[in-house]
Amino acid sequence: MKNTFGCELTVTIFGESHGPCIGAVLDGLEPGIRVDDELIKRQLAHRRPSGVISTPRVERDEYSIVSGVFEGMTTGTPLTIIIPNTNTKSGDYERGLPRPGHADYTGYVKYKGFEDYRGGGHFSGRITAALVAAGAIVIGALGERGVRIGTHIKRCGGVDDRDFGELDRDIEALAESVFAVLDADAGECMKAAITDAARDGDSVGGVLETAVTGVPAGVGEPWFDSLEGMIAHAMFSVPAVKGIEFGRGFDICGLRGSEANDPLSYSGGAVITETNNNGGINGGISNGMPIIFRTAVKPTPSIFKPQRTVDLLTGEPTSLELKGRHDPAIVHRARVVADSVTALVIYDMMRVAGAIK
Amino acid sequence: MKNTFGCELTVTIFGESHGPCIGAVLDGLEPGIRVDDELIKRQLAHRRPSGVISTPRVERDEYSIVSGVFEGMTTGTPLTIIIPNTNTKSGDYERGLPRPGHADYTGYVKYKGFEDYRGGGHFSGRITAALVAAGAIVIGALGERGVRIGTHIKRCGGVDDRDFGELDRDIEALAESVFAVLDADAGECMKAAITDAARDGDSVGGVLETAVTGVPAGVGEPWFDSLEGMIAHAMFSVPAVKGIEFGRGFDICGLRGSEANDPLSYSGGAVITETNNNGGINGGISNGMPIIFRTAVKPTPSIFKPQRTVDLLTGEPTSLELKGRHDPAIVHRARVVADSVTALVIYDMMRVAGAIK
Amino acid sequence: MKNTFGCELTVTIFGESHGPCIGAVLDGLEPGIRVDDELIKRQLAHRRPSGVISTPRVERDEYSIVSGVFEGMTTGTPLTIIIPNTNTKSGDYERGLPRPGHADYTGYVKYKGFEDYRGGGHFSGRITAALVAAGAIVIGALGERGVRIGTHIKRCGGVDDRDFGELDRDIEALAESVFAVLDADAGECMKAAITDAARDGDSVGGVLETAVTGVPAGVGEPWFDSLEGMIAHAMFSVPAVKGIEFGRGFDICGLRGSEANDPLSYSGGAVITETNNNGGINGGISNGMPIIFRTAVKPTPSIFKPQRTVDLLTGEPTSLELKGRHDPAIVHRARVVADSVTALVIYDMMRVAGAIK
Amino acid sequence: MKNTFGCELTVTIFGESHGPCIGAVLDGLEPGIRVDDELIKRQLAHRRPSGVISTPRVERDEYSIVSGVFEGMTTGTPLTIIIPNTNTKSGDYERGLPRPGHADYTGYVKYKGFEDYRGGGHFSGRITAALVAAGAIVIGALGERGVRIGTHIKRCGGVDDRDFGELDRDIEALAESVFAVLDADAGECMKAAITDAARDGDSVGGVLETAVTGVPAGVGEPWFDSLEGMIAHAMFSVPAVKGIEFGRGFDICGLRGSEANDPLSYSGGAVITETNNNGGINGGISNGMPIIFRTAVKPTPSIFKPQRTVDLLTGEPTSLELKGRHDPAIVHRARVVADSVTALVIYDMMRVAGAIK
Repeated sequence: MKNTFGCELTVTIFGESHGPCIGAVLDGLEPGIRVDDELIKRQLAHRRPSGVISTPRVERDEYSIVSGVFEGMTTGTPLTIIIPNTNTKSGDYERGLPRPGHADYTGYVKYKGFEDYRGGGHFSGRITAALVAAGAIVIGALGERGVRIGTHIKRCGGVDDRDFGELDRDIEALAESVFAVLDADAGECMKAAITDAARDGDSVGGVLETAVTGVPAGVGEPWFDSLEGMIAHAMFSVPAVKGIEFGRGFDICGLRGSEANDPLSYSGGAVITETNNNGGINGGISNGMPIIFRTAVKPTPSIFKPQRTVDLLTGEPTSLELKGRHDPAIVHRARVVADSVTALVIYDMMRVAGAIK
Repeated sequence: MKNTFGCELTVTIFGESHGPCIGAVLDGLEPGIRVDDELIKRQLAHRRPSGVISTPRVERDEYSIVSGVFEGMTTGTPLTIIIPNTNTKSGDYERGLPRPGHADYTGYVKYKGFEDYRGGGHFSGRITAALVAAGAIVIGALGERGVRIGTHIKRCGGVDDRDFGELDRDIEALAESVFAVLDADAGECMKAAITDAARDGDSVGGVLETAVTGVPAGVGEPWFDSLEGMIAHAMFSVPAVKGIEFGRGFDICGLRGSEANDPLSYSGGAVITETNNNGGINGGISNGMPIIFRTAVKPTPSIFKPQRTVDLLTGEPTSLELKGRHDPAIVHRARVVADSVTALVIYDMMRVAGAIK
Repeated sequence: MKNTFGCELTVTIFGESHGPCIGAVLDGLEPGIRVDDELIKRQLAHRRPSGVISTPRVERDEYSIVSGVFEGMTTGTPLTIIIPNTNTKSGDYERGLPRPGHADYTGYVKYKGFEDYRGGGHFSGRITAALVAAGAIVIGALGERGVRIGTHIKRCGGVDDRDFGELDRDIEALAESVFAVLDADAGECMKAAITDAARDGDSVGGVLETAVTGVPAGVGEPWFDSLEGMIAHAMFSVPAVKGIEFGRGFDICGLRGSEANDPLSYSGGAVITETNNNGGINGGISNGMPIIFRTAVKPTPSIFKPQRTVDLLTGEPTSLELKGRHDPAIVHRARVVADSVTALVIYDMMRVAGAIK
Repeated sequence: MKNTFGCELTVTIFGESHGPCIGAVLDGLEPGIRVDDELIKRQLAHRRPSGVISTPRVERDEYSIVSGVFEGMTTGTPLTIIIPNTNTKSGDYERGLPRPGHADYTGYVKYKGFEDYRGGGHFSGRITAALVAAGAIVIGALGERGVRIGTHIKRCGGVDDRDFGELDRDIEALAESVFAVLDADAGECMKAAITDAARDGDSVGGVLETAVTGVPAGVGEPWFDSLEGMIAHAMFSVPAVKGIEFGRGFDICGLRGSEANDPLSYSGGAVITETNNNGGINGGISNGMPIIFRTAVKPTPSIFKPQRTVDLLTGEPTSLELKGRHDPAIVHRARVVADSVTALVIYDMMRVAGAIK
């Protein structure tokens, strides 16, 4: 489906970094969700660059909802959000000189040279603003049902944040946090590392950790549309993501079964697991425990250091020195994208499971 | 789509561990692929348990292809493979006593108690035999086009295999290897670790590493149907998989952009990257370099040690001591499943890209 | 999706006329549907040829359900039905001599000569036996919810059956009827017309009319997945169908809006329409009135008269005189296929609408 | 998929009659299609109302293409077209008073009263403007490949147009024709009938006939994604369509097989059929002959005569007298919608078949 994803709730995204606008169509929302503009604005603000740790290209993200909302509430028909691009400097980009680590070369091959190469075109992280706006509507609807989502920067520039603790409190704190860490000191160290890299004309990556609470047991499918499969599929759409792991993830491979298995017991009449090494999912289906996963975000490929590349027009090797405005890290901006993508998948799978009518 | 996956090539799987048979329907194959029974048998043999490092339940996997093949070649219409279950001992399983780490509890909630609970039913790893048989047909077709796939056990029981070296040679060696490691000594240590765990009534997990060579540049989609997203989606369908990472994966987060970016250059007229930290994929699309990813396989949840669980029929906590026949590790059997699932996705995406007509 | 259809309930079909078996996979059934073998057998019997008005090839249709049923009830995981082919005479068919009106030529082009040409291969009406068996399971489940489906032969060989009257009574009568007409005399005339055609080595077509009662208002989607669109899509899969019309259908074009519009009123607290020119559907969505549509079934293309055709192997025009066993009409056999396909779509759309959980 | 349709080329539509805009996203276009604004404008003009035979609500349809086009050519990434609504009079509509023959009642049930009821909201024929604009891009691309599409009003107000004759000439003439008939005199009679109905505060329907030339043999799928099934599915999305028939359609049921079968022969080396009773499609797959089908368009349900309806807010029967601006017929405006929808399906299926790379 290329740019459309989901089963009962589908999201379709469109736009280019330097085109007139970007946007998303959400199809399959329940009717009667109240659209919370404050929430959409807050989420877009969390994604917006600010300060030396981000690109100087700042978009105001003055979105419009042009369909699917009537008298402030969703109608149940396709909801379309459009966000204009206003702050573009297309002169910074040259045709035929692919930036290493970017999609410039692969896009050139796939689209036979017709792609909009300016600022990464349709591959640009700019398009995630549409995912964030779309996600905010769904996050609101999930919140009404007691489902909460939060992502923190687990690692960045060699610095670790503390682990999740009391989840609902942590998620609440993250919602208001501009630089999403649980330990403020760790956050300062991470920012220093990003600033260092920026000073060197370089960039850093990081690991995001996402938690979802309140998803009832029974959501997901045994084989291809496992919760893990659907979340992973969607998360790998976020530019720069190179890995994902659920629960204990790769570390679970070092355990024995007797350590990895989560014993089952009752708590207040409900079935729980005493540990959560499986991250809330067994056999692709939610077990009622918090869903936990981590996502690897590579260092931003746009750096100011000279790099070896090829000139696709002349067929000669060459060197590239980027101009323009670039992020020395995106992990702090990507965390709200992770929340949004997660929300879209969880809402969709809850609809499929009948947990949202 | 639940039990169907893919765009131009779809695979639909069905069956239960203790039902009469399992199977798969492949729709969207080219007409004229010669069906190579030796290859199917070899792949099924690689998945089949053997010795103390596997379950004593050995199925002969006498598959039948009941549609879509005529005079030894695919017709282009749906190809259906059926594999009978012959060696079942259903008395080993009890209703309402979910095994920790398994899908018993989540399946019970989702299917309201109507699920076939015997041996994990539809959640059983047994169903992967159908994926392996289906994958073998596609592996053959890809091989004709110069696309080769191989998976080795990168880590198991605390032991590491050596890294991939000369890829096509390594892949060729793995194709014949029963216990798929590149370093035979490492393999012996892994087997010893599995045997140890088995003796303790326990189990171990591991990490698989898969390489694909020969995929042309331009395969995959920029957003939701990225190669990473499609491969991850499919790989999380394999029971016990809890993580996936491409190229340098989670480790790339510790690099700076100048280290992580793969410089582009020409080699023999073709664009290549000098390093392959991105695992052959940029912006969701193949760049012509080998596709490399690793998959985390958790320790088999079926162990013989007593475990705490709940009795869903009485609503009381209880203890569970498994009877029956179980694998102390599945990582060595799962590697051929990884190959198969990968082949199905790569073939599908190559068809979408027009690289297979 | 080629051979898979549906949203929440998907049906995948496979098999060839002269292969070992045909079958279907149903994915997305509720758990807990009791499988009614008597109903499946009755429906298959309604499709089975008998007497001079049908082909002499009679298959016993000894189906097996090989997955998705446990202790007599659906599990909710994929249900697979397999029906062996036992009575095949492949020698009756020649490669490269397309039968006019059949898919022989188009199949040859599409599948590049690799298609199984015997008896129409995968294009054969034989595959509808799998749809009938699959449909029977869904018809049973819909019946439990008060949804009833019936199809009669509205026209055949120049003879008209009477219109539907008291629907639930008519549907009940049709369920037991071997030659599905509401007026027995009309049925005898139709059979005589078929017999006449058979005697001439020729064939006749007909029009089927289907009614569905008990579908609640609100099922269907406004645009692409309209009830009409979904039913039409599925019905055109039935071989020989060349037209479909809902409610008054093509005749509604001759009315004025004041005649065609169905006035709304209340009856027993429920909204009804006083007439049903729209066949129970407005804007693609059920309005709670009976769903009514008619399907055009062309005369069976397999006839015994000599016909002009081409020899694809020599590139020369030639004449073809069919051997083998053929139906002088299929409309009386197709009616149960219409019921089945309708049931699959209605069940699917009711699941999407949340009317079946 | 609700508001998204297609396999390799998908179209997603959004918007409401009285919202800020309507639009469509096309995903899966080839890169490098030159966007022909004159063609888009001409097609939109063909759909635009004019004179007494149409509604007085005239929209200027000043569309913007906001993504997927770069330097005048498609990029291959999603192409989004937005068309503002400017001429809305929302005061003409009342909540809770469903218009007979419209989707007001079914939309109310499905969307639980949250639907935008003004002017039919998302159900409005207004949304077809987006399909027409999207279709124009595809019509251009198909034209480059020698595929031509034309639709005429076969019947309206009791008057018949002549049959298609020399197809490519007829299609060319229709492209320029405002009131799309092949016989100008018949057209005048139709217009008189529409004017009569308008004078009576009433409306008329009609039958459209569409021809497609230049589609190569081998496009379409044997079962669910037959060309007939895909075209029918899409055409039933067009508001007011109640029937569709291919080739001889319902009339073929009155023929014998020997009359209905199209003999095959060679012409200039190519396989042709001597007649075209099957409308260019056998077994769901194009045979290289012109594709011909007819669509039944019911009389516009919006009429000025008083009608019986229900008051959904009070639960009482009531009478409704429409205010506002309405079409006494839409068949003359719908013909370009038929062309557009057909083009979208043909392009999609040609991509799936590999006939467009």
